[in-house]
Amino acid sequence: MTSQEASTEPANFIHQIRVGWGDCDPAQIAYTGRLPWFALEAIDAWWEHVLGGDGWFQMELDRGTGTPFVHMSIDFRSPVTPRHRLICEVWPCKLGGSSIAFRVNARQDGKLCFEGKFVCVFIAPETFTTKPAPPDIRDIVTPLLRPE
Amino acid sequence: MTSQEASTEPANFIHQIRVGWGDCDPAQIAYTGRLPWFALEAIDAWWEHVLGGDGWFQMELDRGTGTPFVHMSIDFRSPVTPRHRLICEVWPCKLGGSSIAFRVNARQDGKLCFEGKFVCVFIAPETFTTKPAPPDIRDIVTPLLRPE
Amino acid sequence: MTSQEASTEPANFIHQIRVGWGDCDPAQIAYTGRLPWFALEAIDAWWEHVLGGDGWFQMELDRGTGTPFVHMSIDFRSPVTPRHRLICEVWPCKLGGSSIAFRVNARQDGKLCFEGKFVCVFIAPETFTTKPAPPDIRDIVTPLLRPE
Amino acid sequence: MTSQEASTEPANFIHQIRVGWGDCDPAQIAYTGRLPWFALEAIDAWWEHVLGGDGWFQMELDRGTGTPFVHMSIDFRSPVTPRHRLICEVWPCKLGGSSIAFRVNARQDGKLCFEGKFVCVFIAPETFTTKPAPPDIRDIVTPLLRPE
Repeated sequence: MTSQEASTEPANFIHQIRVGWGDCDPAQIAYTGRLPWFALEAIDAWWEHVLGGDGWFQMELDRGTGTPFVHMSIDFRSPVTPRHRLICEVWPCKLGGSSIAFRVNARQDGKLCFEGKFVCVFIAPETFTTKPAPPDIRDIVTPLLRPE
Repeated sequence: MTSQEASTEPANFIHQIRVGWGDCDPAQIAYTGRLPWFALEAIDAWWEHVLGGDGWFQMELDRGTGTPFVHMSIDFRSPVTPRHRLICEVWPCKLGGSSIAFRVNARQDGKLCFEGKFVCVFIAPETFTTKPAPPDIRDIVTPLLRPE
Repeated sequence: MTSQEASTEPANFIHQIRVGWGDCDPAQIAYTGRLPWFALEAIDAWWEHVLGGDGWFQMELDRGTGTPFVHMSIDFRSPVTPRHRLICEVWPCKLGGSSIAFRVNARQDGKLCFEGKFVCVFIAPETFTTKPAPPDIRDIVTPLLRPE
Repeated sequence: MTSQEASTEPANFIHQIRVGWGDCDPAQIAYTGRLPWFALEAIDAWWEHVLGGDGWFQMELDRGTGTPFVHMSIDFRSPVTPRHRLICEVWPCKLGGSSIAFRVNARQDGKLCFEGKFVCVFIAPETFTTKPAPPDIRDIVTPLLRPE
């Protein structure tokens, strides 16, 4: 890819997390149970970024759309520690009729710490039943789609 | 299945979790970020059960063996709520030279809520490097292995 | 104290918590941020015990009464570890017109680990405004009151 | 106070927290159990700020000084929600021979949500015994002390 082509490729959203003492276990690294939590926070922040400040909270309560998870899969590559911020790259990799899939790659100091795939479905909160992705969300997400 | 056949099939370990208000999100169900935490707690409790009271804490500090996660994969089937205890069934499904895989099936009121697969490696904590599964652990785990 | 006197003194409710690896920080003790969480879980379990299975979740959604916290104060006496279960003793120490105060004493292996006082107010969830303690709850709690 | 006087008054440290869906309970506000966690994160971030990037993790592992909590007291004034960032103001209010006390005031949209006092002791991690505040830390903290 030439550098000119590269410049036309939109950069993925980055969410930065401060990893602290309280996130770590006796092995002196972030506890595994915290890492999916970090990934979810990054996806919530992604929505907030692309929907003009509306994360899951506002999506559910103000926009009437929930996006519960039906699947997550994470590979843990390298320990996460408080010595660096955790840089979480988030992008949508698939938009189905009533589902959306995300990739999250989390790095510290340039090193890949974990990478995951997450699948959510669109629902109507009042009935907790699946519904098509709302058109305004579809319009916003579609141009941001990138391969896994 | 006859009761005699049933009795030859070893029952899997069950870890029960009290789901409470603080585990739930505004959708009135347990937050997705809590569910991997529950699964990990169940695996920690499994070790405690099979190693005579020694969970991850004692394994690392007293026995000199850590088992960090390299992979987790979870399918979310049905919401988890505080209306029932969460019954987590845990069993080891593969024991490699220096790795171990677990299945966790979590149910409420007889209904499968989520199911996951988790892969850990055996390490020497002081160097955080992979090592073979300790023989005593291998002897304990091998007869408990069951298919995924 | 004679056994007859002892029998007239109602024993306080006990909630037992399994402290695990994931609750601990690099100092190899339960992280301070987890301890208020444990205390709250014990209070939620206390409600569940005295209200026939209804904890905060059912109180808010089924009974129409919330009890948000307005104050907590905790003294940390001794570290909490995974080497023993955490035995949380909970009792109500004051019932005001629209408030209730609890004491939580948490012990491991007979040793006091932390003790706290917690104050909640009764509210109507739909308006988040204070209301008098419901009569049925008042009737249940009053005989359980004990000094701080 | 004149603006000139104001300028001689050092501003307290501010730590900003993103409150999300996963921090909230079914009452649609941040769960009470999360709030002490937020306050502790803010104190950890304060240390990081005043010690050139060293939070509790580096203090314990690199500097050989732990600061476990012996007391916390929090008044909850107003609900915390994902609709605004949580602005945590942190300052040390007392430095004893081997202890330090902090105040944390947490606000959203200009409104005080909770305020707390936290007391820690200085310890030698290898023995978990109290020790005097290290001189370099004393020198850094003393000019930052402000009344409760």
